[in-house]
Amino acid sequence: MPAHSVRFRDPAGAVRTGRWVDGEPGADGRIVAAGRPYDPDADGVTLLAPCEPTKIVCVGRNYADHAAERDASVPDRPTLFLKPPSAVASHGDAVPLLPDVQTDYEAELAVVIGEQSRNLSPEQATDAIAGYTCMVDLSNRDDQAREQNWVRGKAFDGAAPLGPVLAPPSSVPADAAIELRVDGDRRQAASRSDLVFSVPELLVEITRYCTLEPGDVVATGTPAGVGPLSPDETVAVTIEGVGTLCHTVTRPA
Amino acid sequence: MPAHSVRFRDPAGAVRTGRWVDGEPGADGRIVAAGRPYDPDADGVTLLAPCEPTKIVCVGRNYADHAAERDASVPDRPTLFLKPPSAVASHGDAVPLLPDVQTDYEAELAVVIGEQSRNLSPEQATDAIAGYTCMVDLSNRDDQAREQNWVRGKAFDGAAPLGPVLAPPSSVPADAAIELRVDGDRRQAASRSDLVFSVPELLVEITRYCTLEPGDVVATGTPAGVGPLSPDETVAVTIEGVGTLCHTVTRPA
Repeated sequence: MPAHSVRFRDPAGAVRTGRWVDGEPGADGRIVAAGRPYDPDADGVTLLAPCEPTKIVCVGRNYADHAAERDASVPDRPTLFLKPPSAVASHGDAVPLLPDVQTDYEAELAVVIGEQSRNLSPEQATDAIAGYTCMVDLSNRDDQAREQNWVRGKAFDGAAPLGPVLAPPSSVPADAAIELRVDGDRRQAASRSDLVFSVPELLVEITRYCTLEPGDVVATGTPAGVGPLSPDETVAVTIEGVGTLCHTVTRPA
Repeated sequence: MPAHSVRFRDPAGAVRTGRWVDGEPGADGRIVAAGRPYDPDADGVTLLAPCEPTKIVCVGRNYADHAAERDASVPDRPTLFLKPPSAVASHGDAVPLLPDVQTDYEAELAVVIGEQSRNLSPEQATDAIAGYTCMVDLSNRDDQAREQNWVRGKAFDGAAPLGPVLAPPSSVPADAAIELRVDGDRRQAASRSDLVFSVPELLVEITRYCTLEPGDVVATGTPAGVGPLSPDETVAVTIEGVGTLCHTVTRPA
């Protein structure tokens, strides 16, 4: 079976890529890199986002139940928006909230691109996928409601926690369960099969306009159940076949 | 006087950074790199964008006359949107238009960031600037009008021609003239002093939310006179103290 790959900083400060073995990525198990084991919870081992996107292309309203809770219809083509590399955060990070705004969690299945892609056909789209990871689309609702393009709303520093691993496509079933918990309480639960636009459909549409680069991320949208976060809460996104991405949010710096 | 720096590919295929000397960058003169002269018009010399942004933060409606021509008011805070690295094009490029849509030119003064910046004060903002270059904010109006976030509209491949050089801040006066010509006809003419939000004000506002990285670009908006492009037309943006960025547009590939 193909490996779940993990990027991390080792106790000497070097960035390494290894395999997650013997447990659920982000929850239990260990890392093996260059033949050597690492304890992901050890002092000095810091998990990094499993890829280094040059851009994150996000999709809005891609679950019918979430569109309904936001008083929006399901669109006739994907609603796209962007997060820049500076928005990336990692498993285990404490993401500072912005001052004086409501910040919501949104659980997302994230596609990681494996090869440079433009004008993909549906058949080519599947081959362009390196794998999957978990993402939280942190959303500053106050500014999102006031701006045309969601830059303050969705592109702020730390607005895209990604991880804990890059899971091979074969490990993530077509009906993979997607779940988000805040301090252990389940707030979102859905299946990949609930996506309005499938992963290949999204890649075909995006690459009609933009080249996707290796490591770029396409975030496939969030199901119903989004809600606000308070400082010191812990967000955990579990996707079947991937693992569990955990991060906290903190008071504004 | 500080140099106008230029990135280019030499005839051997190597990427070099040099100085533009003895003429107006993009129009006449030559390049000196590592003590050796290069003719910018010679076969095998290809100008590249003068920086490698991880993101381009663009500003909409930042000239009162352009806001009026788009039937929009001047906003009470900067209207922000993003272009990804895949949108970058260079001086001399032929940018393929998207099929079946109207694509407009928009001349912009582009700020290039010199150091990693977050929560800049107005005083710090000036020190964070590496210099200035010219940008064309190519805009697919059909999709822009139909989407919340301008991804198809403004983030497509080639939608951000940048160049020809990085000009030091001291070479660009506070009232620098900004001009755009299509096949030699002047279509836009303005002054940097017409900006609704000044460059330091923009950097302060953006870095309240996002870290700006070295090489990132802030595009300061376009003045009145925007209009559609047809295949094989040449766009030239001249900014006083910077030089002239030229590119063509071609039929969809």
